Amino acid sequence: MTTTYYHPSAFLLNGSDYTVPGFKGWAVKAGIRGKDRLDLGLIVSDETAVAAGVFTTSMVKAAPVLLDIDHLQEPTVRAILVNSGVANACSGVQGMEFAKATAQLVAQEIGCSQKDVLVCSTGVIGEQLDLAWFEKGLPDLVPHLSAEGLPHVACGFMTTDLVPKIVKKTVELDGKIITILGMAKGAGMIMPNMATMLGFILTDATLSPEVCKEVLRSGADQSFNVITVDGDTSTNDTVLLLANGVAGNTEITNVDSADGVLFKEAVHGLMKELALKIVADGEGATKLITVKVTGVKKRVEALQIARTIANSPLFKTACFGEDANWGRIFAAAGRAGVEFEQMQTDIFFDDVQMVKGGLGLFDNEDAATKVLKQKRFMVTVDLHQGEAQGEVYTCDLSHEYVTINGDYRT
Amino acid sequence: MTTTYYHPSAFLLNGSDYTVPGFKGWAVKAGIRGKDRLDLGLIVSDETAVAAGVFTTSMVKAAPVLLDIDHLQEPTVRAILVNSGVANACSGVQGMEFAKATAQLVAQEIGCSQKDVLVCSTGVIGEQLDLAWFEKGLPDLVPHLSAEGLPHVACGFMTTDLVPKIVKKTVELDGKIITILGMAKGAGMIMPNMATMLGFILTDATLSPEVCKEVLRSGADQSFNVITVDGDTSTNDTVLLLANGVAGNTEITNVDSADGVLFKEAVHGLMKELALKIVADGEGATKLITVKVTGVKKRVEALQIARTIANSPLFKTACFGEDANWGRIFAAAGRAGVEFEQMQTDIFFDDVQMVKGGLGLFDNEDAATKVLKQKRFMVTVDLHQGEAQGEVYTCDLSHEYVTINGDYRT
Repeated sequence: MTTTYYHPSAFLLNGSDYTVPGFKGWAVKAGIRGKDRLDLGLIVSDETAVAAGVFTTSMVKAAPVLLDIDHLQEPTVRAILVNSGVANACSGVQGMEFAKATAQLVAQEIGCSQKDVLVCSTGVIGEQLDLAWFEKGLPDLVPHLSAEGLPHVACGFMTTDLVPKIVKKTVELDGKIITILGMAKGAGMIMPNMATMLGFILTDATLSPEVCKEVLRSGADQSFNVITVDGDTSTNDTVLLLANGVAGNTEITNVDSADGVLFKEAVHGLMKELALKIVADGEGATKLITVKVTGVKKRVEALQIARTIANSPLFKTACFGEDANWGRIFAAAGRAGVEFEQMQTDIFFDDVQMVKGGLGLFDNEDAATKVLKQKRFMVTVDLHQGEAQGEVYTCDLSHEYVTINGDYRT
Repeated sequence: MTTTYYHPSAFLLNGSDYTVPGFKGWAVKAGIRGKDRLDLGLIVSDETAVAAGVFTTSMVKAAPVLLDIDHLQEPTVRAILVNSGVANACSGVQGMEFAKATAQLVAQEIGCSQKDVLVCSTGVIGEQLDLAWFEKGLPDLVPHLSAEGLPHVACGFMTTDLVPKIVKKTVELDGKIITILGMAKGAGMIMPNMATMLGFILTDATLSPEVCKEVLRSGADQSFNVITVDGDTSTNDTVLLLANGVAGNTEITNVDSADGVLFKEAVHGLMKELALKIVADGEGATKLITVKVTGVKKRVEALQIARTIANSPLFKTACFGEDANWGRIFAAAGRAGVEFEQMQTDIFFDDVQMVKGGLGLFDNEDAATKVLKQKRFMVTVDLHQGEAQGEVYTCDLSHEYVTINGDYRT
């Protein structure tokens, strides 16, 4: 007898709203996270899908990250196995053996090569996986795989996330309706003893492996790579794009073709939506903040300044306190390592200007404070020394963040 | 009639314990910070002192920083004027005019060139100084200047600091007893709408300007430049060293001479003590943490990794929560931008080893937790790939930090 557990959040999602032709999914409670949580999910493509991945740039890469990088040398995939509870990071040679063994278990269950299975883990760093969880969990999981079961995977890999993050889009290419489904988890870059941002994007489009890789990489640069909750990059960060070709469109072999551009824009829009959902559900977050830096010579400079502001604890606590503290924004910009002329700098909260030519406009303070009382607002820093710009998305730093990350043992 | 205000903290310091031959000091309530706070301090040397300064590397430098850099082109100084309440940062052309005018007021009062007066400000960014504060305050202050009055200056430039920070040392050079007095303020790198780490070091030693500069610069690299409360560099950070030669020792013209080395070591020890006092009194701090990275090829790599760990909100909240969360230390090291081999990494809490060859030693967790329950401890990361090392000093991230920086308006 199988005991299938449904994450409460899964009830809020109607499975039939989140289907992608040719993909099935499900998640079960395998006991990794105790009794009451979905913790083992599986996504299977009926057909072999082309696939690409982007991974953490940390020097400390978890075993599943290293395994996936290896498996994607051949860019074809049948399945993604994901567990929460244990990150399988800093787990040594044994951790890598476990990662391989879990991929092999899936390969046996669904009938494919071990190399066609990607594995992702999120949870406690340093602990070892127990193969028994997978040996028991997979035979329970596989028979329940269904087209409507994908939201269960989105629930199963949540850790301190409060809500599942799942987005579906369609786009017409070559006379065919193409479906793109994305799911992600985040919360903190690293959570109470736990880790990781994970994102899976599934589509029935027909793509060349090169297009798959290019669309994912350029999308990550404008979405998951420009969000920050607390500046901490995880050991396990992974975003995967699988395209199984079930839609039957003519293969897209060039991202700059008409269909390539349409597809890329749809995927990028979806990735940005997912990324913003991660920030909005950041640990303890009460505000979603866009930090835009404009008037610089290169986008990389804009991002460098925007990230410094977005990661400044003083800026983040001021946002939490709904204080239009432009001095902290100015000071954070000043230490970002990019040269600029302070007397040419303008700073705005949404469209309320608080700094003009480097000087405060104190009469606008009440209007700026109103902007900060919103759940979502934009800070713009205009340096007036070029045409490039860039945006970073972040959340505020609240008491709840300290509680989640400091007090969770008591 | 003059109304002289004594900061409560000044009563705890016995002025005669903090004298330096040839220096006088005092501070008054000039009204910059409302009724109840010392906010204007002055240090005067009887003789013209050689002087050196190190300043914020921010692109956004406050007016007094720019003025002091200019004045120190000629390395002789008679006085340091310091105010709290208004940082005179982001204050434009007018702010620079005010900074010059305040130096001129001091020059008139004590009879010296305006160029021989250094000015420092800490407080709200973006607001303008009011010359009336200085015109009223200085005639009240100057008559009270005394050898025993220096602790008043240390109290007068406090902002969210809970305690004044003042250290005195003596060293025998050339048969003369040399006195070195240091005072500093910190709390947050930038505080509720306020700014700045300031440090003043006064000595009666006789030094060449080159030695003065060299001792200060190398000392800053091992003290104020390796502390972090929240990673935010201020617009006003300034450390000054004044040497008035009143002790009558033979002028030190070479830092590598016997006397040069003795003097340098004494000053560096004092600077480190002051720097640690700033960290221990960081906003909301409950722990003083040394992050040591060893076994690297260059000190700069050690500092890069140590700073990344020390500024990680996840590491800092774990310290607040007394959780020996080595995974967060490992993950922060991994994203610091220095290449290393994760399977050769060791991590210690004081002398309790929690990671050996990249793997957790879970049996030691209870012992490590005991280390974290202390008010002061060291985290060591050994990468085993070189002979260099470096240390950074920081504090934890508590609820109180968020309260101070987020809630202070309510």
